Amino acid sequence: MKPFSKIVTFFLFFLTTVSYNYAQQRVRDYGIQIGVIPTGKHNAIIDVKGVKVGHVTIEKEDSVHTGVTAILPHGGNIFQEKVPAAIFVGNGFGKLAGSTQIEELGTIETPIILTNTLNVGTAVEAVVKYTLQQKDNENVRSVNAVVGETNDGYLNDIRGMHVTHNEVLEAIETASEANTAEGSIGAGTGTICFGYKGGIGTSSRKLPGNLGGYTIGVMVQTNFGGVLQIAGINIGKKLGNFSFSNQFLNNVDGSCMVVVATDAPLTDRNLKRLAKRAFMGLAKTGGIASNGSGDYIIAFSTSKQVRVPYKSISLLKQEVVSNDYMSPLFMAAIEATEEAILNSLFMGKTTTGKDGRIIKALPVPKVISILKAHKLIEE
Amino acid sequence: MKPFSKIVTFFLFFLTTVSYNYAQQRVRDYGIQIGVIPTGKHNAIIDVKGVKVGHVTIEKEDSVHTGVTAILPHGGNIFQEKVPAAIFVGNGFGKLAGSTQIEELGTIETPIILTNTLNVGTAVEAVVKYTLQQKDNENVRSVNAVVGETNDGYLNDIRGMHVTHNEVLEAIETASEANTAEGSIGAGTGTICFGYKGGIGTSSRKLPGNLGGYTIGVMVQTNFGGVLQIAGINIGKKLGNFSFSNQFLNNVDGSCMVVVATDAPLTDRNLKRLAKRAFMGLAKTGGIASNGSGDYIIAFSTSKQVRVPYKSISLLKQEVVSNDYMSPLFMAAIEATEEAILNSLFMGKTTTGKDGRIIKALPVPKVISILKAHKLIEE
Amino acid sequence: MKPFSKIVTFFLFFLTTVSYNYAQQRVRDYGIQIGVIPTGKHNAIIDVKGVKVGHVTIEKEDSVHTGVTAILPHGGNIFQEKVPAAIFVGNGFGKLAGSTQIEELGTIETPIILTNTLNVGTAVEAVVKYTLQQKDNENVRSVNAVVGETNDGYLNDIRGMHVTHNEVLEAIETASEANTAEGSIGAGTGTICFGYKGGIGTSSRKLPGNLGGYTIGVMVQTNFGGVLQIAGINIGKKLGNFSFSNQFLNNVDGSCMVVVATDAPLTDRNLKRLAKRAFMGLAKTGGIASNGSGDYIIAFSTSKQVRVPYKSISLLKQEVVSNDYMSPLFMAAIEATEEAILNSLFMGKTTTGKDGRIIKALPVPKVISILKAHKLIEE
Amino acid sequence: MKPFSKIVTFFLFFLTTVSYNYAQQRVRDYGIQIGVIPTGKHNAIIDVKGVKVGHVTIEKEDSVHTGVTAILPHGGNIFQEKVPAAIFVGNGFGKLAGSTQIEELGTIETPIILTNTLNVGTAVEAVVKYTLQQKDNENVRSVNAVVGETNDGYLNDIRGMHVTHNEVLEAIETASEANTAEGSIGAGTGTICFGYKGGIGTSSRKLPGNLGGYTIGVMVQTNFGGVLQIAGINIGKKLGNFSFSNQFLNNVDGSCMVVVATDAPLTDRNLKRLAKRAFMGLAKTGGIASNGSGDYIIAFSTSKQVRVPYKSISLLKQEVVSNDYMSPLFMAAIEATEEAILNSLFMGKTTTGKDGRIIKALPVPKVISILKAHKLIEE
Repeated sequence: MKPFSKIVTFFLFFLTTVSYNYAQQRVRDYGIQIGVIPTGKHNAIIDVKGVKVGHVTIEKEDSVHTGVTAILPHGGNIFQEKVPAAIFVGNGFGKLAGSTQIEELGTIETPIILTNTLNVGTAVEAVVKYTLQQKDNENVRSVNAVVGETNDGYLNDIRGMHVTHNEVLEAIETASEANTAEGSIGAGTGTICFGYKGGIGTSSRKLPGNLGGYTIGVMVQTNFGGVLQIAGINIGKKLGNFSFSNQFLNNVDGSCMVVVATDAPLTDRNLKRLAKRAFMGLAKTGGIASNGSGDYIIAFSTSKQVRVPYKSISLLKQEVVSNDYMSPLFMAAIEATEEAILNSLFMGKTTTGKDGRIIKALPVPKVISILKAHKLIEE
Repeated sequence: MKPFSKIVTFFLFFLTTVSYNYAQQRVRDYGIQIGVIPTGKHNAIIDVKGVKVGHVTIEKEDSVHTGVTAILPHGGNIFQEKVPAAIFVGNGFGKLAGSTQIEELGTIETPIILTNTLNVGTAVEAVVKYTLQQKDNENVRSVNAVVGETNDGYLNDIRGMHVTHNEVLEAIETASEANTAEGSIGAGTGTICFGYKGGIGTSSRKLPGNLGGYTIGVMVQTNFGGVLQIAGINIGKKLGNFSFSNQFLNNVDGSCMVVVATDAPLTDRNLKRLAKRAFMGLAKTGGIASNGSGDYIIAFSTSKQVRVPYKSISLLKQEVVSNDYMSPLFMAAIEATEEAILNSLFMGKTTTGKDGRIIKALPVPKVISILKAHKLIEE
Repeated sequence: MKPFSKIVTFFLFFLTTVSYNYAQQRVRDYGIQIGVIPTGKHNAIIDVKGVKVGHVTIEKEDSVHTGVTAILPHGGNIFQEKVPAAIFVGNGFGKLAGSTQIEELGTIETPIILTNTLNVGTAVEAVVKYTLQQKDNENVRSVNAVVGETNDGYLNDIRGMHVTHNEVLEAIETASEANTAEGSIGAGTGTICFGYKGGIGTSSRKLPGNLGGYTIGVMVQTNFGGVLQIAGINIGKKLGNFSFSNQFLNNVDGSCMVVVATDAPLTDRNLKRLAKRAFMGLAKTGGIASNGSGDYIIAFSTSKQVRVPYKSISLLKQEVVSNDYMSPLFMAAIEATEEAILNSLFMGKTTTGKDGRIIKALPVPKVISILKAHKLIEE
Repeated sequence: MKPFSKIVTFFLFFLTTVSYNYAQQRVRDYGIQIGVIPTGKHNAIIDVKGVKVGHVTIEKEDSVHTGVTAILPHGGNIFQEKVPAAIFVGNGFGKLAGSTQIEELGTIETPIILTNTLNVGTAVEAVVKYTLQQKDNENVRSVNAVVGETNDGYLNDIRGMHVTHNEVLEAIETASEANTAEGSIGAGTGTICFGYKGGIGTSSRKLPGNLGGYTIGVMVQTNFGGVLQIAGINIGKKLGNFSFSNQFLNNVDGSCMVVVATDAPLTDRNLKRLAKRAFMGLAKTGGIASNGSGDYIIAFSTSKQVRVPYKSISLLKQEVVSNDYMSPLFMAAIEATEEAILNSLFMGKTTTGKDGRIIKALPVPKVISILKAHKLIEE
């Protein structure tokens, strides 16, 4: 994706200098309910059993704000036990590595890494090394690393390429099934969303048993623009902070990486359809997938019924969800994506970056008071 | 797309028998503002100069409620002066004719016809005949008819295939640059949206001069489900009428055809990107692109600078909008699509169809009072 | 696809007036071996058990040379027992109906119909009616007809649209598991290939047991140009009959429809990959997929293990060929497609068409003598 | 792509131990003519004016045989003057970096790098650094590196990841408009094709003026299997060396990278179509795009009329080749790709690699004598 200096300059014009002081809470903690389907236990991607998440935050003085986020589809050797997967490209102005092999073979064989735009190569190299060195992979000579990115170059000295193999490996190795961290961490350390501090967000949905009982978890790295909507209210307009609000062609670029996990046994075709619905969730937050935005959704299934072993076998036995039963999963993916994006904003922290640039956190108290004024939150 | 008897049966369970009585108005007439960009003069697709629209409604007693809608990119011989065009498939459970040639060559060469699912073949045949018979087309031996559809089989005796060549030709021939009709007409005569009467809706946006000054117009044929949102308010939930609300796998199928016109000189690639944004507008109304939904967006440019003559010439001179200037157009397409869908609902009429089935119009007064209670409309 | 008057005019310039007189034989009957994998019993698509083929030829005096070919994936109710399927678009200048639903859902639910360009709408309508009327389909309200075409407008009065529902239904109803007919019949009645009479061709391959033992069958409707190669020999060049041979931009348009059937239990993703290989087979005959060519490959699996019932069930149990075991199937699809195309030429008949235009059959004796001179056929 | 130890083991079984001793020549030097269109001056990609090519070969004792090939669309600052481009994925089992942005924006903004599978990340990082450091790119914060690969892991210690930034930068910086080198060099140092030593090959075509007069140049990195055909003769069969020849599922994996350059002013859509034709050229050599093959074609135009400046401007003026005039370019791309692949084989050198494995060069004298026996070469 493109860097976005112009937009931010513009956005800053609207930002007040008032500082908010409050304990950060997720969007749902304020009584704001996104959608109609219940969440999973932690309302996080790790509600999909087996999924592990790791974040490494890299901050050095003001000029470096970047990091790495790793999402592992399962705790075993992913190369030996590949998971069905698919990618939907919302807008392809990004550097996502690994997409064509996922499209061709329908599987992911490494951890999914998110980082900054200019360190994708670094992360690919690190994931390759990690995979070669895992037990049982002694003869592996081909690795399809999946690495996504957004551009944190407004707050971060991105040209300095501050991510190294170490942070990528650390994110993978410290990944945990209990990690529910959000906000200005990992790959979201230096990102900006709707003119405010974006970052990492997560959410989940658990379908009722009669709709399949499956869990869908989403993790996002938010770095995009548009007109922020929360619980339907056009917050961006009310705060006077939205794309093109001054009628000049502000650069509203940025990007959004979305990772969707589910325990439903899905084929890669239906995972691609699921990924497309996550893009609909992004739309509901007011995102517009601007020209310079790299908006990608990676979806995978953790179900053991659909794993693909590296060891070659002629026939794969699968039990997969039929097309007709996909709609509740679609709805869940939309809802969880919308909420994960909002969580990334609610949990973001005001950050002073490169050249003294400041990006404020979303003024949550103000947002809440607007929503209360509209009787959208019970007092 | 799939028929949707089950969903409607389910939806009906929630519908009250109260009848509303009011003069129908469009969503904006109630002071509800969708998005931030000003509309064109008529807030309709015909704001894009040269675009012509025709509707033929077919109603016979209760059992037949179907029709044809024709959208002409310009008033000349479209085959001889093709327009750049693209299609984005939101969900491909539909019978759209003409898509692969548009993808390959980047142009549309006929009127765009919308009708019911089972009459696509009929409409293709009619468009072919129409094209063969136009002046200057005496030697034409290949015609790529563009025909979309949604399934009106709940209210309409769709298996009776009641559309004939006559209605298709009439829709084309009566098409006018002044047609702003909406609601239960043409291809929208028998359609259902979010459990209420859907149909034809339209809207437009006009960008300020410094953002290009272009006009974007949208026309929709709405026939889909999800959780209706208006001005952000989760109306579907408040009315107790939304997909899966009873936790059974109701069939929420249906479809949505969206046609996006613009006078901006766009390449087919950028038209495809524009089409994708219209899908984001659909998402903002609460649509979920359910499994059985055929959701297609057809986008074209009316700009004479990018027309493609049938007469073979070796080099085409074009002046086209650069990627960097697309974002305002994207935002406009999102907004106009959202508003066009809502207009189709606001203008829909309670309809008694096949086997005495009744689909109510959206209870607009109730919707308005909900929005007022939330201070989303000035009183 | 585009009509191709210019090319033919040009090709005719090179055609001698000598008439050949011989009993027609398929390419393999002459000792020409295409590829390295053994054929099935009949070297025809019907070697894939259950596949049925029907042709209806429409010829009226000189001016009408067209027809319909129907390929049924199995002998049961296809709508109730859908088959996994995929389409690869080699070049999309064609009117193929049904592609987006196949892409979205991964299945075919009707017979596959091939006919001429301007009668696609007619055939769609006929297939819809056929499907509605089948036993058990009493409540069906959505049908995705799959209809392909090539343009026979040089020999046939295509603007007369001479195909009616009757011929489409007849092709379906007379389809048989024993039909191995080829040449100027059915949808190939009026087509032209490499400047000679094209038409219907078929071929098959049967993999050895240790490569899976599967059968792959191909049927083609040939109507395209390029530089004909047979057994590697550049026959087009030797006969002085090939695209652009006079260095003018002759219109080399036309099209090729290819239908690939296999009894291997394949997912739609691997069927799409298989379809892509058939396009490689087309390349090996010297086809160039010129601008005006509509080159589509439709692939489906007849395996009962991967059928998709119309009756909704939540989970599908499947046993499918793994990616790693696809390569022999790929090779078989390439070989069978190449041979099917050559068979369509070897079995084509000199035809006098509209306005007294004559298209010669491939001069097989001359071709054979060339191949013998190169010691490519044992004498 | 997948490594291919098994295949080679198998292939070796058939290879004789006889050594050939001859001065290497390109396929055309033997009087073998591929296709019907004349070549450019050097019969190489550098016939497309402005294109620069650089190779860096990395060989250390027997175990390291790898390298880097750089192809520069023009000699200026590519980031500041982007070229229209497109990618066609023949088979996506590969790690190509940069594809989604090319698809979305239609441009390439860096040199194209080819290397081995496991060093793609390294090369991406190097290209990013190279671009950041170029004059005028001081504020660039987003770079879409285009890096392709094939797997040389049979002859090369690929797990050692022997490519560093240095070799990538050297390949870029030493790239020249006069480089016509072929064979076991650069990214082709360790590759294997049809069981023989593959590598780098190149070829070009120059269309007659009345067909546009454009030049099309192709460069390939060959590393794939199938049944080798030369001048139509099934050489693979005659040499007893082809995929599945022993009826076991030999791993025929590998890959082929194809880069197509042209001075024709083409849109990205028509470049994608051109790329697809190069895949047809690959088919004509007997390649089968096996499951494990990463077969990608990257096509770009060097025409200044279609360059896209980094500096944002609202409207781009272009003069582009119309669809109707594409067919000769298609034919040229097919021919040049076929010949480039054969050149890579004719120019390959017998190589002893890792663990003493030996891959023979194609036995050209034997091939020539076969072709002479079939009177396909004048003596």
